[in-house]
Amino acid sequence: MTVNPDGELTRRLDLQHVFHSWSAQATLDPLAIAGGLGSEVWDFDGNRYLDFSSQLVNTNIGHAHPAVVKAIQEQAAVLPTVAPSHADLSRGRAAAAVLAHAPDTMSKVFFTNGGADANENAIRLARLFTGRDKVVSHYRSYHGNTGAAVVATGDWRRVPNEFARGHVHAFGPYLYRSEFWATTPEQEAERALHHFERVIQAEGPASVAAVLLETIPGTAGVLVPPPGYLSGVRAICDRYDVVLILDEVMAGFGRAGSWFAFDRFDVRPDLITFAKGVNSGYVPAGGVVIRADIAAMFDERVFPGGLTYSGHPLAMASIVAALAAMADEGIVEHADRIGAEVLGPGLARLQDAHPIIGEVRGVGVFWAVELVADRATREPVPAAVMGRVKAELMRRGLLPFLADNRVHVVPPCVVTADECARALAIYDEALTDVEADL
Amino acid sequence: MTVNPDGELTRRLDLQHVFHSWSAQATLDPLAIAGGLGSEVWDFDGNRYLDFSSQLVNTNIGHAHPAVVKAIQEQAAVLPTVAPSHADLSRGRAAAAVLAHAPDTMSKVFFTNGGADANENAIRLARLFTGRDKVVSHYRSYHGNTGAAVVATGDWRRVPNEFARGHVHAFGPYLYRSEFWATTPEQEAERALHHFERVIQAEGPASVAAVLLETIPGTAGVLVPPPGYLSGVRAICDRYDVVLILDEVMAGFGRAGSWFAFDRFDVRPDLITFAKGVNSGYVPAGGVVIRADIAAMFDERVFPGGLTYSGHPLAMASIVAALAAMADEGIVEHADRIGAEVLGPGLARLQDAHPIIGEVRGVGVFWAVELVADRATREPVPAAVMGRVKAELMRRGLLPFLADNRVHVVPPCVVTADECARALAIYDEALTDVEADL
Repeated sequence: MTVNPDGELTRRLDLQHVFHSWSAQATLDPLAIAGGLGSEVWDFDGNRYLDFSSQLVNTNIGHAHPAVVKAIQEQAAVLPTVAPSHADLSRGRAAAAVLAHAPDTMSKVFFTNGGADANENAIRLARLFTGRDKVVSHYRSYHGNTGAAVVATGDWRRVPNEFARGHVHAFGPYLYRSEFWATTPEQEAERALHHFERVIQAEGPASVAAVLLETIPGTAGVLVPPPGYLSGVRAICDRYDVVLILDEVMAGFGRAGSWFAFDRFDVRPDLITFAKGVNSGYVPAGGVVIRADIAAMFDERVFPGGLTYSGHPLAMASIVAALAAMADEGIVEHADRIGAEVLGPGLARLQDAHPIIGEVRGVGVFWAVELVADRATREPVPAAVMGRVKAELMRRGLLPFLADNRVHVVPPCVVTADECARALAIYDEALTDVEADL
Repeated sequence: MTVNPDGELTRRLDLQHVFHSWSAQATLDPLAIAGGLGSEVWDFDGNRYLDFSSQLVNTNIGHAHPAVVKAIQEQAAVLPTVAPSHADLSRGRAAAAVLAHAPDTMSKVFFTNGGADANENAIRLARLFTGRDKVVSHYRSYHGNTGAAVVATGDWRRVPNEFARGHVHAFGPYLYRSEFWATTPEQEAERALHHFERVIQAEGPASVAAVLLETIPGTAGVLVPPPGYLSGVRAICDRYDVVLILDEVMAGFGRAGSWFAFDRFDVRPDLITFAKGVNSGYVPAGGVVIRADIAAMFDERVFPGGLTYSGHPLAMASIVAALAAMADEGIVEHADRIGAEVLGPGLARLQDAHPIIGEVRGVGVFWAVELVADRATREPVPAAVMGRVKAELMRRGLLPFLADNRVHVVPPCVVTADECARALAIYDEALTDVEADL
């Protein structure tokens, strides 16, 4: 095998100068990615990988989609950046394109740089709209990495944002590892709702501004909520006048085989947060879709939130192009079919064949495979086994997404049935090898 | 004048669907920007404006710099996005390019989406490095709009990040409106340092993780610190083992006529946060430059922070190209000369001619002009006067940056002496008209 010096240069510069997210820096062994197209990426030596991670579950439209690349290139030539206070055509078009897929109760979009600051601004809107402080979310959840900058700020923008208290967490439904001694999806939903309402009652409903939930908790394990759960949460929010924020950062824009994941459930949120799939992360972008009456509250009153790159034209052009391509090419419907006809049945067959698989769950191109040491006790496999699984998958040309004891099967929405068949064969072989050594 | 329908479409879509930063939404009258080059932007009807705002003080390299546009276009074609866990060549190169301008005590860069999450992660690093909680910053400061998402998060990533307390603010030096009854820069520096150290002593130095300051507070009024202040803060931080974070988001990368604003002062920080000028905001990006021993603390220990678009290749390619062009074209040195030879003397002449100007201060292409109702009392002009100033400047083809009672004179670093002369004439005429009606 020839070794392209750029691969070594890439790894050397990375290890020398780049500080990595959520990592112990000395333990890193990064793959140097040189390029990608569709569901594949490759390194500098031409080794190709099926990207069944979608990087960080964001390249829903696949890598280097030509229409989105072209839109970025064209906008860069026109004008890369325009301050949020001015009007930009790509920004208005992006807002309209996002709203086209949202409930008609929604009127406006506030754009951010990613999912974290989308949730920041949704929480801010809910707190100001209700005049209350507390935000109730799930223990098994991820909503972003920010929590201090505005409180470190010294000017007036700090004062309406000193929400230094009031974050409350409750357990959500997760039948495979139920916190409620439940044995059926119906029971899990009913008991999780009882628990959720009891937490809100105990906190004092008049102090609760918002419920913030991932529609389908993602990194926590693709925890598809049981029937009735989300509509039950909606009813609880209505009962206590609490704003329901659904975090669609990972689940939205095709990942769950629908435009928004909540389209699959009988529920409508008051605020929607998004990022990742909206433009497949080709340019950093996120945002909040806002119900008309919540937006209207800030017609005459200053909204105390904002950021330099809100509605960044390059990001906006990529959103317009990505959503148009997804609609034109039927990518969301394709993801739904791939889930129902290929990945779902294929992963179920793997579960039948491999005792190490405790549970398979998911929808669309959003699946989790739980690996357990013992199917009866459901004890997760140790970290060393996951390391081995990763190595076996990489060795066979599959770039995986691993979290705790789980393999998340999260290819781009454009993944073909043939690519899924190749990936399923790789998962099969890798698990066979790993099981043989246990 | 012909009216291009795209201008009206841009404004209509914006007002209908886009929720704006830091604004009462019904009061907006946004300018529809169609394009830009260098120090100018234009609307859809061909009206041209000298951009003396640099949008949000970020287009240091000017609009649509061809080398940066080309780098974005080329990277988009190769691969727009790569997850932070993998190695990307443009990311390593961007880290090396940033570090080339930083003190040699620094070893690594953690990339973010902008300035807010740069400060988030600098605060996180300082708190984990020191094992302390409190962060002391100035009242007159802005460090970003985020403050809740990680506390709303339910998984393990929340636990090391629940910094719900410990943000302390002190007054910084601002001789024109001294909080310390000072009459000379030396006295202001000395008294501000005394106050700052007393706050730290009263809070308990052993509880203070970090001091977080804008090297030159920007939105607060381009408050260039008096000689001795920053080195005095450095000495206080050393005395109590406190991490000094300098926020260079607005002041860095040429704005102050130097690569970092702290290059102009006798001070070296432990962490540097940046965004805006590093790539002129062509793609959303920010980051933290980390001292070697602080970075090394996370060699074996997991750093509990991160984000999907950390080290985004498109952003990284734009950083590499922007910093190379700024070096090749001598843009930073040019900004320094423009400040010393053109803007500084020109604004001083305006102050001589216009009683409404209370003070002019700044450096490089980073200036503030304070408008006052009375030079003796230094009472700020009312908001209505600032509205009038804005209208008079816009009418004459200058896009201004206004904050409170101040006009911030913040053109791109590439602004020419001729453009500055045109702008100074416009400021002169506009102030003459406004003063005539007072």
